[in-house]
Amino acid sequence: MKDEKSDSLALPKKADNLNEWYVEVVERAELSDKRYPIKGMNVWLPYGWNIMQRIDGLIREEMMRTEHKEVYFPLLIPEEQFRKEAEHITGFYGEVYWVTRAGENELDVPMLLRPTSETAMYPVFSLWIRSHTDLPLKVFQIVNTFRYETKQTRSFMRVREIHFFEAHTCHTTFEDAERQIAEDIEILQNLFRKLCLHYVLCKRPDWDKFAGAHYSIGIDSVMPNGRTLQLGSIHQYKTNFSVPYNIKYEDEKGEHKFVHQTTYGMSERLLGAVIIVHGDDRGLVLPPIIAPIQVVIVPILKKEIREPIIDACRKIESALGAEGIRVKCDMRDLRPGNKYYYWEMRGVPLRIEIGPRDLEKNVVTLVRRDTLRRYEVLYTQLLKEVKHIMEDMALSLLRRAEEMQKDHIQEVNDLRNVKEGKIARMYWCGNEECGHEIEDVTGWSILGNPVNEKHPLGKCIVCGAESSDVIYVSKTY
Amino acid sequence: MKDEKSDSLALPKKADNLNEWYVEVVERAELSDKRYPIKGMNVWLPYGWNIMQRIDGLIREEMMRTEHKEVYFPLLIPEEQFRKEAEHITGFYGEVYWVTRAGENELDVPMLLRPTSETAMYPVFSLWIRSHTDLPLKVFQIVNTFRYETKQTRSFMRVREIHFFEAHTCHTTFEDAERQIAEDIEILQNLFRKLCLHYVLCKRPDWDKFAGAHYSIGIDSVMPNGRTLQLGSIHQYKTNFSVPYNIKYEDEKGEHKFVHQTTYGMSERLLGAVIIVHGDDRGLVLPPIIAPIQVVIVPILKKEIREPIIDACRKIESALGAEGIRVKCDMRDLRPGNKYYYWEMRGVPLRIEIGPRDLEKNVVTLVRRDTLRRYEVLYTQLLKEVKHIMEDMALSLLRRAEEMQKDHIQEVNDLRNVKEGKIARMYWCGNEECGHEIEDVTGWSILGNPVNEKHPLGKCIVCGAESSDVIYVSKTY
Repeated sequence: MKDEKSDSLALPKKADNLNEWYVEVVERAELSDKRYPIKGMNVWLPYGWNIMQRIDGLIREEMMRTEHKEVYFPLLIPEEQFRKEAEHITGFYGEVYWVTRAGENELDVPMLLRPTSETAMYPVFSLWIRSHTDLPLKVFQIVNTFRYETKQTRSFMRVREIHFFEAHTCHTTFEDAERQIAEDIEILQNLFRKLCLHYVLCKRPDWDKFAGAHYSIGIDSVMPNGRTLQLGSIHQYKTNFSVPYNIKYEDEKGEHKFVHQTTYGMSERLLGAVIIVHGDDRGLVLPPIIAPIQVVIVPILKKEIREPIIDACRKIESALGAEGIRVKCDMRDLRPGNKYYYWEMRGVPLRIEIGPRDLEKNVVTLVRRDTLRRYEVLYTQLLKEVKHIMEDMALSLLRRAEEMQKDHIQEVNDLRNVKEGKIARMYWCGNEECGHEIEDVTGWSILGNPVNEKHPLGKCIVCGAESSDVIYVSKTY
Repeated sequence: MKDEKSDSLALPKKADNLNEWYVEVVERAELSDKRYPIKGMNVWLPYGWNIMQRIDGLIREEMMRTEHKEVYFPLLIPEEQFRKEAEHITGFYGEVYWVTRAGENELDVPMLLRPTSETAMYPVFSLWIRSHTDLPLKVFQIVNTFRYETKQTRSFMRVREIHFFEAHTCHTTFEDAERQIAEDIEILQNLFRKLCLHYVLCKRPDWDKFAGAHYSIGIDSVMPNGRTLQLGSIHQYKTNFSVPYNIKYEDEKGEHKFVHQTTYGMSERLLGAVIIVHGDDRGLVLPPIIAPIQVVIVPILKKEIREPIIDACRKIESALGAEGIRVKCDMRDLRPGNKYYYWEMRGVPLRIEIGPRDLEKNVVTLVRRDTLRRYEVLYTQLLKEVKHIMEDMALSLLRRAEEMQKDHIQEVNDLRNVKEGKIARMYWCGNEECGHEIEDVTGWSILGNPVNEKHPLGKCIVCGAESSDVIYVSKTY
């Protein structure tokens, strides 16, 4: 048996080296195996896949609530279909995988693996949509997508086969598409609250919008080292795709018009953010709603008193299970300390320990994963306490994430004062030249204007012109 | 508005032309759109995808019950890894898609899209498995797989991007792997009972086993036209893959041994079978357990009495919904007849109609989709009756399917007497020459020996030698 202390010490401190810590946690919590022989294509292990499916489940709930329909479009896209929207091709050309052979045959028309599904879906949308009564069309899918990343890959953060959520909508007017984007933001709020994640929502500068978009909104989350991780995006396409793909509807007056479109994308990076934001020096810390196991029960067995303890564990297991709590008794033949280490690494929200003294006093010992607080509760109060902890832990993780974000924002009015480790907030006149100057001097990226915020007038950090536009600037992942 | 009668008449009779009927039902029930510009790669429409996800859910339940873990392995497989098991390559070489380019680069090592995941998983299994305590290893995944079909494609039945379930297990001994196969058969029984499907389970003749297998068991279902549709397979690999992929464990005595492996595969053909076996001249008939909508409520509105009827519909909707029944009120501005047609086509198990006369008499009118029986029940008896129908309909669909299978088996002792429209059952000595003779004369395929059946001695239909081996022979899809 491995020594638990040396195992535990070997996890790098999160504060000292976030990247190494991350790699180790992903491996030790058995989320992903990166030894698959293609770089950036990793094996989802059962525990990691289970968490991801729960995140997908939360997304599906929101999609159902807002009457999006789930579809599945083919993975392969014929080259010709891909080539219809010029900016879109340019944006993706360097990073697509091409299928050129099938069996013994060279294909006449090469096909690509979807990097995203606009060009797979839109030719079909043009068949589906005839009349204004077919609109809005709101569909989504959760699928594997592919990007030939040339940068360094990292599990869930930058991979070449991406577990991807994408919603696509079509509307009669620009205004209706704008209302969709407002709904997308509401979905985002609900989802991120459940995942206990914070975010900033910024309209990207024009040179950084999605290939083919009218405008793009980035969903970024600040990590503890001050770098931002983009967790998704929402795009207004206007008619930029409906024109080349000929997606038209007949309005009430019999006129034929192009639809206005939006998309909404998020990926397995959501899991990456959950790991980085909530985790600590003992490993993962999972928000209860996505924890495959919410409560683990560890018996403290002594030779002279085994059966009553095992019985008590089983009784609690079935009482909690009956209430819909995901609970597991760890009856393995290991020392309790090893079990603590094991389940803490995997982020199980609550541990219940039951030993001879607990039994005598009619109590159980609880250990909360986020605070590591250890305390006793009366057996009769247990169910109520467990439910309370599940709720309280979610609230407390969310609060902590939001505070972390607040702590990691620096207000800057001189580019020379931008400090590493925090994202910067500054005034910008909106002029492209000043924008590039900001990026060149800092070596960081403009995330854009925060959406739905109003600011008093200030001065552009570069040219000094008056502006009410505040922007976030950060070092990005 | 389209005329409902002409729409209804236009569906070909199932008994007259099963293939045309199938194509029409798939289209009109909005299960799949085959207008995607790559042959054999179709769009899953929301209704079809929803049913498939429910079928997947039933599979997952069985996998969890039997302690299989869900994983996700990468789609792409490097050529080198694929080439390790010689028979397996030969079996698949003609039907794999190759990725040869990424971005602007020709790849040094071409990669293929998984046709199935043995060669993606087994190199990683060889890293996971060290000791007998790591065994059995039982994993599964539900993923998209790819086969370059040259035969005519058909939605769910023969496609090039396949929605695929695959379980892979590793064991210390051949006997333990055999026990796994017994468990697989039990899983099959449970799943097929829920889908109300019948099957024959046959050990395939050697020349028809899976590429690389020690032996293969085919899961075939007889369709109403007497052709069989293979819905899945279970394979015993022995050490055929563990040797080339070097998957070894250390046993209790410290000896290193190769693992014994099995696999279990099923696909979207399960949905194809549900459509063909249960459907009728009005469209789909769905077993309640997989029906996205189990009960549809249609108000029969008269000008003078609208509100009370709408209220009654809503009340029933929430009463049934509260019991976990998937129920929908169809409040669209359409004639009731059009709604009947619409929901019958989509196979909704039960329709509730409520009109002024029902309201007066305190009854509702029920129409069961399988029998099309129409009758009244007292409002107070409704919930009980709905639950009863859900159960009874499942039983009755299963019984009907099993009877259909029984009716479609012909006992044959002279190859000249084999009749179209039924599968044939005959004695075979097991000799390969006689086997080929059977296939040549009939133009059909030997499905193999039914598993777990014992038969009295009989005579090989070709050479007359004594044998206790009965086989099924059929025209296959």
